[in-house]
Amino acid sequence: MSNNGTRRIRFDDLNLFVKQCYLAVGVPEDEAAIVADLLARSDLRGIESHGVMRLPIYIKRLEKDFVRKKCRFDITRRKGASAFVDAHGSMGHVVSYKAMQLAIELAEEHCIGWVSVKDSGHFGVTGLFPMMASEKDLVGYICSNSAPMMAPFGGRERIMGNNPMSYAFPAEKHDDVVVDFSCSVVASGRLILMRKKGEKIPLGWAVDKEGLPTEDPYEGYEGGGSLAPIGWHKGYGLAVAHEILAALLTGGKITRNIKSLYEEDPTGIQGTCHSFMAIDPDCFVGRDAFKNSLDEYILMLKSSGKAKGVEEIFFPGEIEARTQKQRLEKGILISEATCRELDSLAARLGLDIKYS
Amino acid sequence: MSNNGTRRIRFDDLNLFVKQCYLAVGVPEDEAAIVADLLARSDLRGIESHGVMRLPIYIKRLEKDFVRKKCRFDITRRKGASAFVDAHGSMGHVVSYKAMQLAIELAEEHCIGWVSVKDSGHFGVTGLFPMMASEKDLVGYICSNSAPMMAPFGGRERIMGNNPMSYAFPAEKHDDVVVDFSCSVVASGRLILMRKKGEKIPLGWAVDKEGLPTEDPYEGYEGGGSLAPIGWHKGYGLAVAHEILAALLTGGKITRNIKSLYEEDPTGIQGTCHSFMAIDPDCFVGRDAFKNSLDEYILMLKSSGKAKGVEEIFFPGEIEARTQKQRLEKGILISEATCRELDSLAARLGLDIKYS
Repeated sequence: MSNNGTRRIRFDDLNLFVKQCYLAVGVPEDEAAIVADLLARSDLRGIESHGVMRLPIYIKRLEKDFVRKKCRFDITRRKGASAFVDAHGSMGHVVSYKAMQLAIELAEEHCIGWVSVKDSGHFGVTGLFPMMASEKDLVGYICSNSAPMMAPFGGRERIMGNNPMSYAFPAEKHDDVVVDFSCSVVASGRLILMRKKGEKIPLGWAVDKEGLPTEDPYEGYEGGGSLAPIGWHKGYGLAVAHEILAALLTGGKITRNIKSLYEEDPTGIQGTCHSFMAIDPDCFVGRDAFKNSLDEYILMLKSSGKAKGVEEIFFPGEIEARTQKQRLEKGILISEATCRELDSLAARLGLDIKYS
Repeated sequence: MSNNGTRRIRFDDLNLFVKQCYLAVGVPEDEAAIVADLLARSDLRGIESHGVMRLPIYIKRLEKDFVRKKCRFDITRRKGASAFVDAHGSMGHVVSYKAMQLAIELAEEHCIGWVSVKDSGHFGVTGLFPMMASEKDLVGYICSNSAPMMAPFGGRERIMGNNPMSYAFPAEKHDDVVVDFSCSVVASGRLILMRKKGEKIPLGWAVDKEGLPTEDPYEGYEGGGSLAPIGWHKGYGLAVAHEILAALLTGGKITRNIKSLYEEDPTGIQGTCHSFMAIDPDCFVGRDAFKNSLDEYILMLKSSGKAKGVEEIFFPGEIEARTQKQRLEKGILISEATCRELDSLAARLGLDIKYS
């Protein structure tokens, strides 16, 4: 279906198209399936900034050998409820899928599982990994460092990541609660998307490379600016904590030494670091009691008094879950700019299969 | 030393005074020592809003049997790297001290330790507990729910806690990095302090009970208003996550059912819930490597380019550590209003010892 250059694509078709692209550049079948599902689900849940619009750069990095085509996932230390993993520059999506799986296994045995990973890469939508735990009735958590996006509180140099974190919690009747955010007021992908759409950004989202507030999405990120942290010193502190939990705990690359997806690195790897945690409610109140009380808590939030002009109070992750249901039924709307890039990618890789 | 009603008091004297107050109302010696040290150290580190200015209400609650004089700390479930504790309405300070100690012991055995506690109470300064872990070269973490202070994102009813969290990380040469914040732009104690001082608050810190922005610290909190969350939906999501990790995981009281320190509860307990985590860097990069790399990271942050008008970039916890050194040497300045309340408390308890 096509309308002014945008297209509406079925989830399964998009998933298969992405998988074919990864297979075409030599990624093994099982790993191509993991990353394709994650990327297509990003768009399915309405998080376009981290979905298939990133596919061309992911594929290009694989072709240039900046990212390993076949994942290396070496557990270099394993003790008690923890595991320490070296990913040797493998795809962040596949590494994080495996790491979360391992954290879940550890939690099933020890109540808590903690896995820290060095030398990984960009993994897309943070929230999809802890959701692997909530789908199994566990609590899931992840934090990561990222390429430089913010200045320290009081600074003007872009040396801090916005270092995302996410929690997922299983409910019984409702969709899972998914808290997923980075420590900047908005994500860099949002600025890239608005630059592509030719839109301005509100003041307060970012500063330019001189540290001055800007309405230009290019100056606020790709042109060397810095994203603003949430709550100023609070978001700064949280980003520092994630840097330490991800990169310092593993001896991996700190944000300052991580290039963005769109830059080359002489070491040949991006090197993002992540930590993963799973918690089994059976070691506390019990899984069923936990899920039922989450339903009650959700209802309490949603039924409370609304601010003037607000029609509905949402719980974290509710809008994405609702978008997912709509898009599973009606298909995923892909923007004209992204369609052009995917068409061009498909042609270059000589793919028979089309995504529409 | 006295000046315009304010007094400068030595840390040890303040500590001893607080301990005598707790002993006077029947708290056992070892527990009085724990809470006195925590309260006096709050003021020592410059966090007056959660220090001895709260002593009169803490003592009053003990006298009224709203809080147990002797701590009950029942480990109701213990498996793997986790423990589940029922505190039966004991003092939050003592409960949290014991819970963090237990998380440290679990981490020493399993690399990670996680302890969740129900039916505790107000514990003062969040950051002091994870610092118990960083003092032993481990990473420390805590999150908690709290009395109602914020509306959900899009709401106007004060039913959410600002649900604080804190991390502490050990450095080698530098003071430990301590990230300590609640999910509201500022803490309620800050508003109480400014109301006592007769000062206005900046717009953006809080809304009144109609949901409208206010400059009146009373209307923004004690008068039924709501604190504003950091990063709007992000701070809302983080507060929801902490509520779930603290209260829903334990089956304890959710924020909506928790009265503030200044209200009575028919159940006779406040019921705040907390979770604690410790991580041993020896299971990852190693303790020494971790501490040394934290020194390097601190130097990198501090030596980066400064924004115009900024003289120094601080790492999280640095200002508090600097205040601690100054106040250990020169004494702690206690405000006139707090001095009057402490004088009156001392007289009422018939204490021989004075804190000045």
